[in-house]
Amino acid sequence: MKLVRYGAHGNEKPGLIDKDGALRDLSEHVADIDPYVLGREGRARLAAIDPASLPEVEGTPRFGAPVAPVSKIICVGMNYARHAAETGQPVPAQPVLFMKATTAIMGPNDDVVIPRGSTCTDWEVELGVVIGETARDVSVDEALAHVAGFIVINDLSEREFQLEHGGQWVKGKSCDSFGPLGPWLVTIDEVPDPQNLHLWLEVNGHRYQDSNTSDMVFGVAKLVSYISRYMTLLPGDVISTGTPAGVGLGLKPPTYLRPGDVIELGIDGLGRQRQQVRAHPADASAAR
Amino acid sequence: MKLVRYGAHGNEKPGLIDKDGALRDLSEHVADIDPYVLGREGRARLAAIDPASLPEVEGTPRFGAPVAPVSKIICVGMNYARHAAETGQPVPAQPVLFMKATTAIMGPNDDVVIPRGSTCTDWEVELGVVIGETARDVSVDEALAHVAGFIVINDLSEREFQLEHGGQWVKGKSCDSFGPLGPWLVTIDEVPDPQNLHLWLEVNGHRYQDSNTSDMVFGVAKLVSYISRYMTLLPGDVISTGTPAGVGLGLKPPTYLRPGDVIELGIDGLGRQRQQVRAHPADASAAR
Repeated sequence: MKLVRYGAHGNEKPGLIDKDGALRDLSEHVADIDPYVLGREGRARLAAIDPASLPEVEGTPRFGAPVAPVSKIICVGMNYARHAAETGQPVPAQPVLFMKATTAIMGPNDDVVIPRGSTCTDWEVELGVVIGETARDVSVDEALAHVAGFIVINDLSEREFQLEHGGQWVKGKSCDSFGPLGPWLVTIDEVPDPQNLHLWLEVNGHRYQDSNTSDMVFGVAKLVSYISRYMTLLPGDVISTGTPAGVGLGLKPPTYLRPGDVIELGIDGLGRQRQQVRAHPADASAAR
Repeated sequence: MKLVRYGAHGNEKPGLIDKDGALRDLSEHVADIDPYVLGREGRARLAAIDPASLPEVEGTPRFGAPVAPVSKIICVGMNYARHAAETGQPVPAQPVLFMKATTAIMGPNDDVVIPRGSTCTDWEVELGVVIGETARDVSVDEALAHVAGFIVINDLSEREFQLEHGGQWVKGKSCDSFGPLGPWLVTIDEVPDPQNLHLWLEVNGHRYQDSNTSDMVFGVAKLVSYISRYMTLLPGDVISTGTPAGVGLGLKPPTYLRPGDVIELGIDGLGRQRQQVRAHPADASAAR
């Protein structure tokens, strides 16, 4: 299934995309695409519904993040060897983990707002894993049974905030609008091999990132198992599995996002995102 | 007001502690001590209730964390100069931020469980700030108007996970039971000066930490303002403002928690916590 949340920000309704690409409403069946429907039983209940029986949604509404609420976002750093190299870091011996505040979450096509005073806002296409069943210290073999499905994530990052403002990376990862999720939550039964997905990202039509999840240092099952040793993963929690080479920080010279830029990104089978980049209101008014 | 949540884990009810120390039930007035009651208006509504009109609760029920849900916990590192020195770090020029997963939250007197395989589980008494109004890029002058109140936090930390497992600190901060909060959320009107609070921590009756929030490098107003520049703080979000000197890591030799230890900690006016330390079930059974 391709599960979605559609409608105005804060008032999204649950829906699904049928095999012909039509958006159909699930409000009669579930309150939201929330932790209650992400487990095996919840997904089985949804899968038993004939999509043709669901009302088709008129027009082209906005998509929100395809899951809510999300209790935490765990991100993985340096999980593609060429990306580690471009940032001047060694390939890690263990997964590098950090968190992105959930207040950064937004819809896949909402505007990216450059934080006040930022000059180093960067892009990162990533495969996102959505947890379906509570995972606490699970083995690699058990890990995928705890996954509901997969999403596209743009793990937007402010490099000066992340690397030059002292301490840990969270400062550069958590700004509002730095977490576009979606458009679809594609359930795991429709993703035969999460380690063989083409992912790409373009800014203003120029392709900067073009890779495959087969290049990950630590694969999805390993990551779910590893993270679950350090903390309990709840249904709806999101793991962002790291970005491949081609971020702005790694270019010579480094190249960052500017107001007016358009970011497009996608993962085969998981849909695509498109974000317009906007100045922070305070900076925009200062420039006038 | 001293607001509390009491009762069995997952079924806590809202309450308050009256001027005579009695626990009184607030269920008739609010559903929970949640983001809806933490703002200025919500607190004013609660303050208008005569505590004597509330039913007194019989017995001595368990306390849960005094606020729920919490969308994020932002922790501040190296925020007392002597603590920075004992860990071998310089006093930071800007606040060092990291996150603790909200799945670590528990009641103030619940058992601390040493994570599987851990030998370096450590203690950290900290002043916790609970946000009352959404704070986005607020000034230092505006900051305290966005605070609902204050709590005691034990920011439990696994030093090997934090410092030797690669990358960022989140791994050593987020284990289940690593976030006892409470017992009380003391509203800001009852805390005349958050920068003059005595805080202390003992293990098995030996006092390891004994300091005052006047020794903080960055005070509460500065921290709220600073963090709100990097991310939006929501009502119910918790800032853990850093620990003073005297953690196990800083002792010679380093000294960590063992099953059977008893941790007691408190902050004057904010109440005290008492945790029994337990082995992880997997390690406990392996030892038999």
